[in-house]
Amino acid sequence: MKIAVLGTGVVGQTIAEKLAALEHDVTMGTRDVKKALATTGKDMFGRPAFGEWYSGHANIKIATFADAAIFGEFIVNATNGMGSLNALEQAGKENMKNKILLDVSNPLDFSKGMPPSLSVSNTDSLGEQIQRAFPETKVVKSLQTMNAYLMVNPSLVPGDHTVFLGGNDTEAKLKIRGLLITFGWKDENILDLGDITTARGTEQMLPIWVRIMTTLQHPFFNFRIVVGQPPQV
Amino acid sequence: MKIAVLGTGVVGQTIAEKLAALEHDVTMGTRDVKKALATTGKDMFGRPAFGEWYSGHANIKIATFADAAIFGEFIVNATNGMGSLNALEQAGKENMKNKILLDVSNPLDFSKGMPPSLSVSNTDSLGEQIQRAFPETKVVKSLQTMNAYLMVNPSLVPGDHTVFLGGNDTEAKLKIRGLLITFGWKDENILDLGDITTARGTEQMLPIWVRIMTTLQHPFFNFRIVVGQPPQV
Repeated sequence: MKIAVLGTGVVGQTIAEKLAALEHDVTMGTRDVKKALATTGKDMFGRPAFGEWYSGHANIKIATFADAAIFGEFIVNATNGMGSLNALEQAGKENMKNKILLDVSNPLDFSKGMPPSLSVSNTDSLGEQIQRAFPETKVVKSLQTMNAYLMVNPSLVPGDHTVFLGGNDTEAKLKIRGLLITFGWKDENILDLGDITTARGTEQMLPIWVRIMTTLQHPFFNFRIVVGQPPQV
Repeated sequence: MKIAVLGTGVVGQTIAEKLAALEHDVTMGTRDVKKALATTGKDMFGRPAFGEWYSGHANIKIATFADAAIFGEFIVNATNGMGSLNALEQAGKENMKNKILLDVSNPLDFSKGMPPSLSVSNTDSLGEQIQRAFPETKVVKSLQTMNAYLMVNPSLVPGDHTVFLGGNDTEAKLKIRGLLITFGWKDENILDLGDITTARGTEQMLPIWVRIMTTLQHPFFNFRIVVGQPPQV
């Protein structure tokens, strides 16, 4: 399938690489292609800058947000949550019309340092903001409750653990479920919570995610929903 | 130990019953003792009203918030989160001075219907508000990320799952850890996240908790933090 991955950070890179390995035809979208390709050296986390990473991935194309969105039959929003609405505006409403948008972003605001706060939360969510701004796009919120490497390789954490789905379009969620299974997720570990308003719940898991990462000093963990039976009365 | 359990709802009842079964000397605290004891019949969830429940629990005493706080060497805040600060004011700052307060409340606001929102979240939490209002009390946030029955009987959900701890006083957290172990929690499933600001994280788990309960149609589940190893680079 032709897939656009918007965003060139670690999340976009990790998802693009996995999709290409699964033999999808992947175009990454960015604000300024020349600028993205010109980055060299290591980023603040010691990872290769996008330009270096990209030179080692001949099977992945890069384009503007709009050209990537035109290309993709299916679109992944892996942009920084604080800039997602703007990036998607650049991708273009018409270019995303009737397409599925897998939204893996989080509205994390690091402007006041650690721990981050959420720029939208409680009575609204970034997932809902995106769905409202692009009503003819089928937004599915998923995967954003974990580290990027784990999104595409759940076996990095042993045993069963959970990935959530939320969105208004049942068929779109079934397609994302299918994609997640190709990433290595077991069907029984994919929990569909309901419509896009459930993004309030999954986005508000980020504050504890950050605290757990701080406690463990690494991000290779996930939430598992362990279910019992109601006691017999 | 002499323990005050503030709040006569299902959370207060469940914790008081467990503590009494563990042979602690328990006094429940309420706003208006006569009024609480006068309740009869079933509540909106089909459970016996406090008055009926209490008549079957001869080993538990009841008093005003203040008298209960004076009695308790150790205090549990099991009041409704929206009313907790007011209830604790009635319990009295002096009466809680230098004592450990286990805060199991959540700032859930049902005033606009389901799903509830949080009356404080993101850049603050009820746990922090309580700690600020009662600076000489050692507030430990715990247990409030799950159903009340599960708090005192983790085996209601099979296998391993997680209970969080947050608070500024290390010794107080160790004592709560010990108490949780007497409730049936395994030491390795008790995750200390750090200071009381981590209550932002645990309180913000409630929105997804409510959505999962809605999806499963029962509250007998819990979060487990499943931890992997950082990949070898």
